[in-house]
Amino acid sequence: MAGSSFGTLFQITTWGESHGAGIGVVVDGCPAGLSLSSSDIQVFLNRRKPGQTSYSTMRKEADEVEILSGVFEGHTTGVPISMLVRNQDQRSHDYTQIKSCYRPGHADYTFDAKYGCRDYRGGGRSSGRETIGRVAGGAIASLLLKSLGIHVQAYTKAIGPYTIPEEEYDFSVLTKDPLCMPHLGYSEKAQAYLNTCMKQKDSAGGIIECQITGLPAGIGEPVFDKLDALLAQAVLSVGAVKGFEIGDGFAAAKAKGTENNDAFCIQNGQLAKQTNHSGGTLGGMSDGSTVCFRAAIKPTPSISSVQHTVNTFMEEVELSVKGRHDPIIVPRAVVVIESMAALTVADLLLRNMSATMDNLRRIYQ
Amino acid sequence: MAGSSFGTLFQITTWGESHGAGIGVVVDGCPAGLSLSSSDIQVFLNRRKPGQTSYSTMRKEADEVEILSGVFEGHTTGVPISMLVRNQDQRSHDYTQIKSCYRPGHADYTFDAKYGCRDYRGGGRSSGRETIGRVAGGAIASLLLKSLGIHVQAYTKAIGPYTIPEEEYDFSVLTKDPLCMPHLGYSEKAQAYLNTCMKQKDSAGGIIECQITGLPAGIGEPVFDKLDALLAQAVLSVGAVKGFEIGDGFAAAKAKGTENNDAFCIQNGQLAKQTNHSGGTLGGMSDGSTVCFRAAIKPTPSISSVQHTVNTFMEEVELSVKGRHDPIIVPRAVVVIESMAALTVADLLLRNMSATMDNLRRIYQ
Amino acid sequence: MAGSSFGTLFQITTWGESHGAGIGVVVDGCPAGLSLSSSDIQVFLNRRKPGQTSYSTMRKEADEVEILSGVFEGHTTGVPISMLVRNQDQRSHDYTQIKSCYRPGHADYTFDAKYGCRDYRGGGRSSGRETIGRVAGGAIASLLLKSLGIHVQAYTKAIGPYTIPEEEYDFSVLTKDPLCMPHLGYSEKAQAYLNTCMKQKDSAGGIIECQITGLPAGIGEPVFDKLDALLAQAVLSVGAVKGFEIGDGFAAAKAKGTENNDAFCIQNGQLAKQTNHSGGTLGGMSDGSTVCFRAAIKPTPSISSVQHTVNTFMEEVELSVKGRHDPIIVPRAVVVIESMAALTVADLLLRNMSATMDNLRRIYQ
Amino acid sequence: MAGSSFGTLFQITTWGESHGAGIGVVVDGCPAGLSLSSSDIQVFLNRRKPGQTSYSTMRKEADEVEILSGVFEGHTTGVPISMLVRNQDQRSHDYTQIKSCYRPGHADYTFDAKYGCRDYRGGGRSSGRETIGRVAGGAIASLLLKSLGIHVQAYTKAIGPYTIPEEEYDFSVLTKDPLCMPHLGYSEKAQAYLNTCMKQKDSAGGIIECQITGLPAGIGEPVFDKLDALLAQAVLSVGAVKGFEIGDGFAAAKAKGTENNDAFCIQNGQLAKQTNHSGGTLGGMSDGSTVCFRAAIKPTPSISSVQHTVNTFMEEVELSVKGRHDPIIVPRAVVVIESMAALTVADLLLRNMSATMDNLRRIYQ
Repeated sequence: MAGSSFGTLFQITTWGESHGAGIGVVVDGCPAGLSLSSSDIQVFLNRRKPGQTSYSTMRKEADEVEILSGVFEGHTTGVPISMLVRNQDQRSHDYTQIKSCYRPGHADYTFDAKYGCRDYRGGGRSSGRETIGRVAGGAIASLLLKSLGIHVQAYTKAIGPYTIPEEEYDFSVLTKDPLCMPHLGYSEKAQAYLNTCMKQKDSAGGIIECQITGLPAGIGEPVFDKLDALLAQAVLSVGAVKGFEIGDGFAAAKAKGTENNDAFCIQNGQLAKQTNHSGGTLGGMSDGSTVCFRAAIKPTPSISSVQHTVNTFMEEVELSVKGRHDPIIVPRAVVVIESMAALTVADLLLRNMSATMDNLRRIYQ
Repeated sequence: MAGSSFGTLFQITTWGESHGAGIGVVVDGCPAGLSLSSSDIQVFLNRRKPGQTSYSTMRKEADEVEILSGVFEGHTTGVPISMLVRNQDQRSHDYTQIKSCYRPGHADYTFDAKYGCRDYRGGGRSSGRETIGRVAGGAIASLLLKSLGIHVQAYTKAIGPYTIPEEEYDFSVLTKDPLCMPHLGYSEKAQAYLNTCMKQKDSAGGIIECQITGLPAGIGEPVFDKLDALLAQAVLSVGAVKGFEIGDGFAAAKAKGTENNDAFCIQNGQLAKQTNHSGGTLGGMSDGSTVCFRAAIKPTPSISSVQHTVNTFMEEVELSVKGRHDPIIVPRAVVVIESMAALTVADLLLRNMSATMDNLRRIYQ
Repeated sequence: MAGSSFGTLFQITTWGESHGAGIGVVVDGCPAGLSLSSSDIQVFLNRRKPGQTSYSTMRKEADEVEILSGVFEGHTTGVPISMLVRNQDQRSHDYTQIKSCYRPGHADYTFDAKYGCRDYRGGGRSSGRETIGRVAGGAIASLLLKSLGIHVQAYTKAIGPYTIPEEEYDFSVLTKDPLCMPHLGYSEKAQAYLNTCMKQKDSAGGIIECQITGLPAGIGEPVFDKLDALLAQAVLSVGAVKGFEIGDGFAAAKAKGTENNDAFCIQNGQLAKQTNHSGGTLGGMSDGSTVCFRAAIKPTPSISSVQHTVNTFMEEVELSVKGRHDPIIVPRAVVVIESMAALTVADLLLRNMSATMDNLRRIYQ
Repeated sequence: MAGSSFGTLFQITTWGESHGAGIGVVVDGCPAGLSLSSSDIQVFLNRRKPGQTSYSTMRKEADEVEILSGVFEGHTTGVPISMLVRNQDQRSHDYTQIKSCYRPGHADYTFDAKYGCRDYRGGGRSSGRETIGRVAGGAIASLLLKSLGIHVQAYTKAIGPYTIPEEEYDFSVLTKDPLCMPHLGYSEKAQAYLNTCMKQKDSAGGIIECQITGLPAGIGEPVFDKLDALLAQAVLSVGAVKGFEIGDGFAAAKAKGTENNDAFCIQNGQLAKQTNHSGGTLGGMSDGSTVCFRAAIKPTPSISSVQHTVNTFMEEVELSVKGRHDPIIVPRAVVVIESMAALTVADLLLRNMSATMDNLRRIYQ
């Protein structure tokens, strides 16, 4: 409840600053008996590691995870799983500039406004490195879901002006593409766009889409903790996200009821829907079809162009942030959004277990 | 944590079904010493009451609120405030149709999937009447904020294809307009559009925008409980909402960093921003400028047109929902979105009190 | 989290003051499919109703409960169950005395210190009437547990100096005894003692013991939310309780390890314990034997004797509280303690469902 | 909510097993601006370190704490403080015995019953080493309280049959005494008693008392989160605790109202109490006098004597636990109880900040 935890029954608590000793997470509430090793986690962390393409920061970080507790003889034991990633690239930078200046688009000013102080080395707590803890926790959630046949998959749907239409998705290229886009042609155009941005000392944003398949109907709580509501919180809690939509999202606001309602039908002897405008939820609970949501990511605020701002002495100044920055964070944020979705779904799945007396009887009788 | 509560320190718990004995809310954590009477609450409830325009259901409900606890001699006492609105329009309808059929776009099926049963009279717990509790609780949050100079105001930004551009807002007409739109011209077009929808036995959606002014900088928690993240949960937890965006939202995904970053400057001796693309938050904390977010509302799923669906015996059937329905819920949802925003901000404001040792010293020394 | 809720998954939120409109509770998280009616609840409420013996206040209250939501066609539906008991005995008493005086042993002063105000009619929120909400919620928890073969039973173990030794318990007399004591002889002595107290304008305390049988092993969380820890919170949260002990309790502090350890053995082919010094828990989790704990109840602070105190003008004064008071609250508190135990166990039972991947597979595969 | 966290606003989450990589804690919600270094924490950890007297285990552990986050330039920054203590004494013991046998008085069996598995090296998660995280977190809470003039002090009141009467307390000897007793004479008797226990391959228990001074009136929430209720949970959540009492505790159950009520009076121009039978709380809120509570600690279950038990194959066996064990844990548990009290009070202190509109105005206007 103090703000660094997410989830009720499957709960993560993250900690760490960009230039402190390390970054970590405590996962509490993971059921006992899930097969788990540090290499399982590492696979997910490697997807967000910097320095892998020309579109991400050159900061050198191995980002190797150590599992400190909660796993014994290759399986979770039901007690908290603590994971630690040491920060390595902590050379004595010159932080004078950030220390005394409020960078536009960053949280420097709001941290000072809230706490009266801030760790001005890098982004401190609001650095993208904080997401390491989310991804390590999300990896466990993903593995738990996978073991029950539930799959969470995020990818880049759009970069700047280039949006891949749903009917052109080609997921076979996803792991190869440097931008995590399911279409090589759109990716090439997006890469050219990013190269231009970099030359102009500018940055770009984009849209991440995420699909959850295999989720049984009825997951999510019907009032405040709706599946879509908690997904929205999860997604907006990631630094650069400015929007969330599920199913047709904002387009639904322009549609008519006859267009937007998904007709129920019977497929293979089971209830199904003829369309999926709703994005897989009805009344905040999964309806058995694919859950599909999108996150709008703003352009990276760290740009090399000169910017007007204010310093801590309340003087207007010109700021030119040194160093090399990600021209876009979307590709590295894909696994972060995916992790937040997995955490949300895993938690609601556990919470749903006590929905009926029938379920209680199945466990206790 | 069981799903019907919202907020940590300023917390509401809602209960009630559309055709049960009544609807209510318990507000826990409201500070002592706030001036409050049932008529203060009634003003807010009247804004969502049905039967006020030709675009809302004719269900007759006085929706009179009774304060059962927590207020003494005209002020809150710090203990839970329980409020009750009795359901009146509970005549013995014929529910056979809804009982055995899953209405498209409704939560009938997902309730059955989750709980193995449902209150099939009206929408049960997923009825719009559930929002009475939110509005009654939100009214108190709004009044608390107002007493500190913080104002929350929502309105209809778009209905179907008609979207009012920001530069044409005229808030002076807001209370008069039947659609809660800040522009009479757009409202007229929207009304004509709605009339057509009604003739076609169809329904429409729209976009609600909300502005929060007077909020000091630093409100919101920097990681999972970001101001924007909790607003997103709050907004998506309202039945028909399919999208949330703050500031430039999805448009930010197409912008460049030089366009999207808001330059800091000094205005009237205080730090300010030259633009507000961020929508009033940075790093999940308020930045002192106006917080501005939008909610996409889907078209009302209850339509009179014949729809294809499945019944509880897993047979495909044609459904023609009887009765008269709201062709749009947007105007009545305005005060609901506003309430959820007020609840979110009030809670984060209380949580922020313990952010610094300086604040502790101001209270305890 | 705002202080009027108890439980995580099976959660109650109580509200109401002694002389307000009524007292109530919202039960959130009760699984769907539990058979429930208002008369089921009334049975429990009648056990704490005033005016039933010569040892309880003559305040006339029917304490009839109305279920406002969450029950449909005789069963719980999984959504919040709201219950209301109207206060009846609200005649215009003269509260001048309590309004301006801090009664010793009561919360008058601490309410003023915390909130700067208080509802001075009766005990306000700290009145024993607040426990109506607990008992109504606890009734549902008890019925849920009973349907799984788990039984919670509290009774009076001691009043003043009269303590019934365990080996003399006779539970067959429990429902008949006005003091809820499982031994008629001790009850007679206790009644004589209470009659003397009343003549002396004095009051008495006692000890309530509670046994939980049929609880499977493994219920409770191993660190902060131990079964015994949450029982302790539950019990100490009841107004007049000053102590809690489980198993041998304070006597264990004087024992040696060889005496206190319970040897495991096999009984009827199942693991059992030869003794139960631990009171049915090990490491905070139920061990399959009877859970047995005790609560120490202080003498009723409302006494007719003249007392020295301070008024709200910070002057020392003599206070003689008028009216007739319970000389002891122990017998009426029995069902309250039992309710708190049932609520605690029900919540931990639901929480335990997600302890293992095996359980997840039993529900989802 | 997953069981390894304690507190609402000032919240700790502990993790770690006795023979895993290490033990740690994340403290979330500590206000910014508190002076803090690892040596401040080490002082508290050293009080529970093993091997310091002949009455504690010879396990060699430096228990050196590393602060991994949340502290910058000598002060807390408001973000989570993560602390790590590496386990050192992890030589390859022979765990065959514990692996296959349920030790009486330990949580071996209940862990297996709950999770279907357990880390059988040492006590795993239920080991006393888990309290390192509590003490590291409690140290910060203690320092926060101290900076506001609130002092928490625990000590050994009784060991086995030797109980120090309140009027003989001599706190000047506390830091010197190997048993943390405030009376050298009683300590000598207790030491002789413990030496006998050790010779008899037996163990002893005792009572820890804790006093909190300087606490303003009104701290604690009036219903479920009473100061005494949360202290009870906090204290019972420590492994070997079997009882809790505040003020006169169980003795109050035998007293009469005229004896038990504390008369209010004026002292030094302030409201005070002539006695403190209540132990510093009224209605669950601090009353301005010293908060005083006691915890009953059972004898260490690890004893060298031969014990009857059951193995994992459900066979009855004789068990003789090898190795040298603490004959008593009371002296080392003193700082653990003190830590839990400090955590409870710090959390309630933060929660109390939003109790009144006056407080809100002091922060926001």
